Amino acid sequence: MKFGFVNEENMILLTDLYELTMTQVYFNKGENKTAIFDFYTRPVKRRPYLISVGLEQLLYYLENLRFTEEDIDFLYRTGKFTDEFLDYLKNFRFTGNVYAIEEGEIFFPNEPVVQVEAPLIEAQIIETFLINTMQISILVATKAMRCFSVARGTGLVDFGLRRAHGTDAGMKAARASYIGGFLGTSNVLAGKEFGIPIFGTMAHSFILAFGEEEKAFEAFAEQYPDSSIFLVDTFDTLEGVRKAIEVAKKKNLKNFRGVRLDSGDILKLSKETRKLLDEAGFKDAKIFVSGGINEYKIKELLDNGAPIDAWGVGTELVVSADVPYLDCAYKLVEYNGKPKMKLSTKKLTYPSKKQVFRVYKNGLIHKDVLGLYNEKIEGKKLLKKVMENGKVCVELPSLKEIREKAIKNLDTLPKNLKDIYSEEVFLPELSDKLKEKVEKTIKEIKETI
Amino acid sequence: MKFGFVNEENMILLTDLYELTMTQVYFNKGENKTAIFDFYTRPVKRRPYLISVGLEQLLYYLENLRFTEEDIDFLYRTGKFTDEFLDYLKNFRFTGNVYAIEEGEIFFPNEPVVQVEAPLIEAQIIETFLINTMQISILVATKAMRCFSVARGTGLVDFGLRRAHGTDAGMKAARASYIGGFLGTSNVLAGKEFGIPIFGTMAHSFILAFGEEEKAFEAFAEQYPDSSIFLVDTFDTLEGVRKAIEVAKKKNLKNFRGVRLDSGDILKLSKETRKLLDEAGFKDAKIFVSGGINEYKIKELLDNGAPIDAWGVGTELVVSADVPYLDCAYKLVEYNGKPKMKLSTKKLTYPSKKQVFRVYKNGLIHKDVLGLYNEKIEGKKLLKKVMENGKVCVELPSLKEIREKAIKNLDTLPKNLKDIYSEEVFLPELSDKLKEKVEKTIKEIKETI
Repeated sequence: MKFGFVNEENMILLTDLYELTMTQVYFNKGENKTAIFDFYTRPVKRRPYLISVGLEQLLYYLENLRFTEEDIDFLYRTGKFTDEFLDYLKNFRFTGNVYAIEEGEIFFPNEPVVQVEAPLIEAQIIETFLINTMQISILVATKAMRCFSVARGTGLVDFGLRRAHGTDAGMKAARASYIGGFLGTSNVLAGKEFGIPIFGTMAHSFILAFGEEEKAFEAFAEQYPDSSIFLVDTFDTLEGVRKAIEVAKKKNLKNFRGVRLDSGDILKLSKETRKLLDEAGFKDAKIFVSGGINEYKIKELLDNGAPIDAWGVGTELVVSADVPYLDCAYKLVEYNGKPKMKLSTKKLTYPSKKQVFRVYKNGLIHKDVLGLYNEKIEGKKLLKKVMENGKVCVELPSLKEIREKAIKNLDTLPKNLKDIYSEEVFLPELSDKLKEKVEKTIKEIKETI
Repeated sequence: MKFGFVNEENMILLTDLYELTMTQVYFNKGENKTAIFDFYTRPVKRRPYLISVGLEQLLYYLENLRFTEEDIDFLYRTGKFTDEFLDYLKNFRFTGNVYAIEEGEIFFPNEPVVQVEAPLIEAQIIETFLINTMQISILVATKAMRCFSVARGTGLVDFGLRRAHGTDAGMKAARASYIGGFLGTSNVLAGKEFGIPIFGTMAHSFILAFGEEEKAFEAFAEQYPDSSIFLVDTFDTLEGVRKAIEVAKKKNLKNFRGVRLDSGDILKLSKETRKLLDEAGFKDAKIFVSGGINEYKIKELLDNGAPIDAWGVGTELVVSADVPYLDCAYKLVEYNGKPKMKLSTKKLTYPSKKQVFRVYKNGLIHKDVLGLYNEKIEGKKLLKKVMENGKVCVELPSLKEIREKAIKNLDTLPKNLKDIYSEEVFLPELSDKLKEKVEKTIKEIKETI
């Protein structure tokens, strides 16, 4: 019986087989000069902007990457690798440089979020894990920020762990949604590992086990007099609210936290619930709402005056339900000093080491320019060197700092891009030098093939 | 710097906070009689049938569940738990029984896939992890089986690791898609941990690094003369095929495996590729296709006579792109011998310990009957006791055996449900005794509230 956990010891094998077979061929041929790879996304509907998240976890992976004896032994047994190559892998480390858009920053399609500069074999082997780590983090952080952007100061909590795609997605979703403006998560392990605030209310099973709402509420209030949020929709929502009020009075709850609505006509029920709470003198008691919540529902309910104080956002957040994957790629853009591009189809890549220059106007993002790395262009340079020779070379911000930056960055987003219904595509302009480089590279490739 | 891996040591904290706060209240009140919980799904569009997968991993979790000192220490520091409760958790084990539909079996909405019978606290604490483990496994296995059902014997390989939602989803997707009829995966760690066959070809970066296709193909063929699959679409697909043929001839490849097409008009390109390969005498060389593949594209291409031999299915498989989550739940259906139901909204649950009886007609699934556990109803009993007093009590089949069973089970599916465009909803009938129980329980609850 096996679970198949991924951990520090075996993470290097969480890769596509071809990363290892290709690199064995590089090894045979002595092709291990410096390569530059870009990780970027292509435009996707309903995501006019994206939030950079996942870098710290990527850097952790890169710093700790090595093949254990057990790994080498497994590779040997596949019969696909030579003794010489396996010997090389025994001492394999990532020794390259990484340039990245910092966590919490807004970015747009075609902009390299991570740029890896390393010996070809190293830069290739890390591809699969890099995309795996970054994509889900970006997806959830962006979805979270979309919720935050319409929440008008109401609180948001990640309730999605159970519906996340496996254990790691649950952890990454908690971290990414916190960066995206959420107050915290229901995920206890994310609380422990990342220091994210943890929240919780109660389940329908809790009411059902006690058989009656009063009994269940009373038992909970005895243990948690200052933090009880009563779930009121197990049988009849407004009856449930009345019972919650009775218990709050009976148990003399000074800081009655409030109630949670999880089903039914939330607009109507939240208004009636507010009225009942106010009439009973519990003006500070909050209304929490959960159950199929996403940014569209939050906006619609608040637009219609629903007196909701906080949201538990689950499934749609953690699987990024309307956009469950990005069209993202990790592409070779330079090898041994030569610019590289893939030509076929319309999925053009931009060659060479690059920089993203951001120009603001009146505090808002006006345009981004994609240029060559050493170009002199006015604007804030988004790509920063975060790893040098395989070691992190900057002080990484705390999760809280990243979160604060992300929330501030949202204010730099023009209205037409912030709109959750926006289908605009905002791309960086290309600098003249990059344009020249693209044309020259295409010409060179066409002469070769 | 932290990755936040989930492993055997900390998995018990991968749970929603309320599971622990609720159970502390149960503990205070001595409410720890036997509870029965159902894990089941509700109808979802475009998934008329589902494949049960994830049980082995769930059982591993249940058998190995315990709080470490570090876990207890973290819970203590949250300030939410009493010393008495934390002492209780120190010796916490799952001691219950589990009934489940075996891995690889077809099931339908409203049928309990897993039924847990355990002391209330234990049955409650495991909720979040149970859903987290089961949902993604079912999603991917079902998506895989949908691909398999239209693949007409062509091969299918999981290429999705990079786009899976985190590390664990990549592992679960490899396992689930293998059960769903795939030949294997690109995921090396899944090969090591689960013994799944691993496959790979080459990337565009490999061609670009060498600069010319001939050089890249030759270098690969030297290392892998019997298993080279040349990627031909980096510059111009048909030119790439011609170069692959030249290299296969030059290097005298006896078992030239074939080429991979990853972009462009696949129907047209695959036909022209086949012609070129055949004319060159490589009738056994295969055509592999990847790039945005799903069951709909497989069916359309094969319907139109595309001579494709095998598919790399990635993103759409591992995130189950058209249905990225199930409407699934884990609900209390009995406590201390009393049937339990949630009444509000239309999401009715069926009370008490149950069994699913499957009736076949001419080898096809004719109907399922949802009855009480001990009812005498004709039909194959789908729920089997797999865990007794916290220990697995059956011999678990190997992954290969599960896969073979799953493929056989597909033949029992009526055509109207097998159709990938089907939007039918197939639900179990309720036995008369279960219907009576439902009515009686509703009446009793209404008298109480």
